[in-house]
Amino acid sequence: MTDLLELGRKVLMSQPFSVLIGAELREFSDGKAELVIPITETLKQQNGYVHGGVIGYAADNAITFAGGSVLGTSVLTAEYKINYVAPAVGDQLIAQASVIYAGKRQAVCRCDVYAVKDGVKTLCAAAQGTIVKTGEETLPPKL
Amino acid sequence: MTDLLELGRKVLMSQPFSVLIGAELREFSDGKAELVIPITETLKQQNGYVHGGVIGYAADNAITFAGGSVLGTSVLTAEYKINYVAPAVGDQLIAQASVIYAGKRQAVCRCDVYAVKDGVKTLCAAAQGTIVKTGEETLPPKL
Amino acid sequence: MTDLLELGRKVLMSQPFSVLIGAELREFSDGKAELVIPITETLKQQNGYVHGGVIGYAADNAITFAGGSVLGTSVLTAEYKINYVAPAVGDQLIAQASVIYAGKRQAVCRCDVYAVKDGVKTLCAAAQGTIVKTGEETLPPKL
Amino acid sequence: MTDLLELGRKVLMSQPFSVLIGAELREFSDGKAELVIPITETLKQQNGYVHGGVIGYAADNAITFAGGSVLGTSVLTAEYKINYVAPAVGDQLIAQASVIYAGKRQAVCRCDVYAVKDGVKTLCAAAQGTIVKTGEETLPPKL
Repeated sequence: MTDLLELGRKVLMSQPFSVLIGAELREFSDGKAELVIPITETLKQQNGYVHGGVIGYAADNAITFAGGSVLGTSVLTAEYKINYVAPAVGDQLIAQASVIYAGKRQAVCRCDVYAVKDGVKTLCAAAQGTIVKTGEETLPPKL
Repeated sequence: MTDLLELGRKVLMSQPFSVLIGAELREFSDGKAELVIPITETLKQQNGYVHGGVIGYAADNAITFAGGSVLGTSVLTAEYKINYVAPAVGDQLIAQASVIYAGKRQAVCRCDVYAVKDGVKTLCAAAQGTIVKTGEETLPPKL
Repeated sequence: MTDLLELGRKVLMSQPFSVLIGAELREFSDGKAELVIPITETLKQQNGYVHGGVIGYAADNAITFAGGSVLGTSVLTAEYKINYVAPAVGDQLIAQASVIYAGKRQAVCRCDVYAVKDGVKTLCAAAQGTIVKTGEETLPPKL
Repeated sequence: MTDLLELGRKVLMSQPFSVLIGAELREFSDGKAELVIPITETLKQQNGYVHGGVIGYAADNAITFAGGSVLGTSVLTAEYKINYVAPAVGDQLIAQASVIYAGKRQAVCRCDVYAVKDGVKTLCAAAQGTIVKTGEETLPPKL
C-alpha cells in the first residue's frame, strides 16, 4: 500500500459518516480515487435499491479525494451535479473519480458510480463537480 | 396531520437509509416538502461539520418528496446539482424544497438546506434538480 | 438610472457577443440583475423556438452580473447548471438573477428565465451557479 | 461523408442561431458528436476571451447531437451543467460530446470543450447533461 493510500484511508476513517456508510478507499493516487461500499439493507430505499443518498455520498466523497490527490492540501467539494441512470442493485457500489482539470486552488473532477452484481458492473450514476482548497490545513502538505 | 403528510411519513419510514440518517418529514403539501435531520456525531466528517453526503441526501430526498407532491405517482430524482455554501453545525439540518415547474411526467424543484444552531438558521447548501415519474406505481394516484 | 446600472450597461456593451445577441441590462442592483433579450429570427432553432444556447447565455450572464453586484470586483461564472422547462416563444426573453449566498471570493446565484408573449410571462428555464472573483480587476472596486 | 453526418449538418444549418454562431458539425456518429466554431471577434467578451455563452452553446448543442445519435428521433437538452476551467483563446472552439448512458427516452452525455491556438488544444470547459426525446418527430426514425 502506498503512503498516499494509507493516508487517505486514515482520513476516510476519521469521518464518522463514512464509517456509518461502510465506505472503503480502494485507490488513491495522483488524480484518481476509488471508493467501494458494500451494499447492505440499511443503505436501501423502499424498493430494495441502494438509496440515491448513498450513491450521491459515494460520488461526492470520491471526487473530494480525487481533487485532494492533486491540490496538495485540505479540500472540500464546493459543488457537484449527479445524474442517476439506473437503479443500483447487487453486492457493491464502486465510485471511480478522476481529475479533469487542476488549478492552484481548485480542481474539476468527474465520477462514475457502478453497482456490481454477480461480478457484473453496471453504471448507475455519473457526476461532475468542483473541489476547492480550504484555509484549514488538516492534511500534510504532501497530500 | 394531513393525510398527505401521514402518507409521506410512511414512505420515508419505509426507506432504511432514511431511518439510518434519522430524517423526519415535517411538511409535505402541494408543491412543498420539508425534511428535518437531528445532527448527531455519526453524521459528521473529520472536522466536526455535518458530512456533505448527509446534506446531499437531505436535498435530494426533499426534492423527491416535493416533486412527488405534484406528480401524483411514484417518483425518483433523475438528477440534481448542489452548491455547498457554509459548513453545517448545530442541532438540526432542515431541507426545504419546492416545485418550480411541473409537467405531466417531470418536475423541476429547488431546495435550500439550513443548519440550525441555538435557534439561528444558516443556509449551508442550495440545490436544483429534476424529479421524474417511474413506471412502477408504488404510491396512491392521489399522491 | 443609478451609477451601478449605468456601469453595468457599459460592461455589457463591451462584450461583442452580448451585442450580437442584443441583450440589455434592465436591472442591476445589490444582489440582483435582470437581462432582457428581444426575440429575433436569428436567435431561434429549427422549430421556431428560441435556441437553448441563447437561454443559457441569458442565465449565465445574468448570474455573472448578480454575483458582480456583491463581490465588488471583476468576476466570472465558474460553473452553472440549467434546466430547460418549456419552449421559449414570444417577443422577449427575461433573465432574472439573484444572489443566494455571498462570501469574500465567490457567490452562489439563481436565475429564472422567462419568455414573454403578448404580455404573458412563462418560465422557460431555471439555473443555479457559482460566480468567482478573478485576479484581474477590470471593474472599479465599488462595483 | 456518412448519411448521418450529412443529415446532422442539415439539422444544424436549419438552426438560425447556430448559423449566427458559425458552428460546424465535424463528427456525428453512433454516440458521438463534435462541433467546431471558428473564433471571431463577435463571439468574445470584454477581455478578448470567447464569451462563456458561446462555450455553453457549444457544449449544449454538442450533447444534443450526441444524444440524438442514439435516441433515434427528435431530441432536446433537458438540462446540463458546465464547469468553465480556462479562458478560451485561439482560432477554434471544439466541443466533443459522447453518450455515457442511453435509455429508451433519454440519454446522459458528457462534453469537453477545447480552444485551439497555434495547433495546441486546451480544455476550457466540461459539461454533463440529459437529452430527452420530444414528441415531435422531426428526424427520420433511423437517426
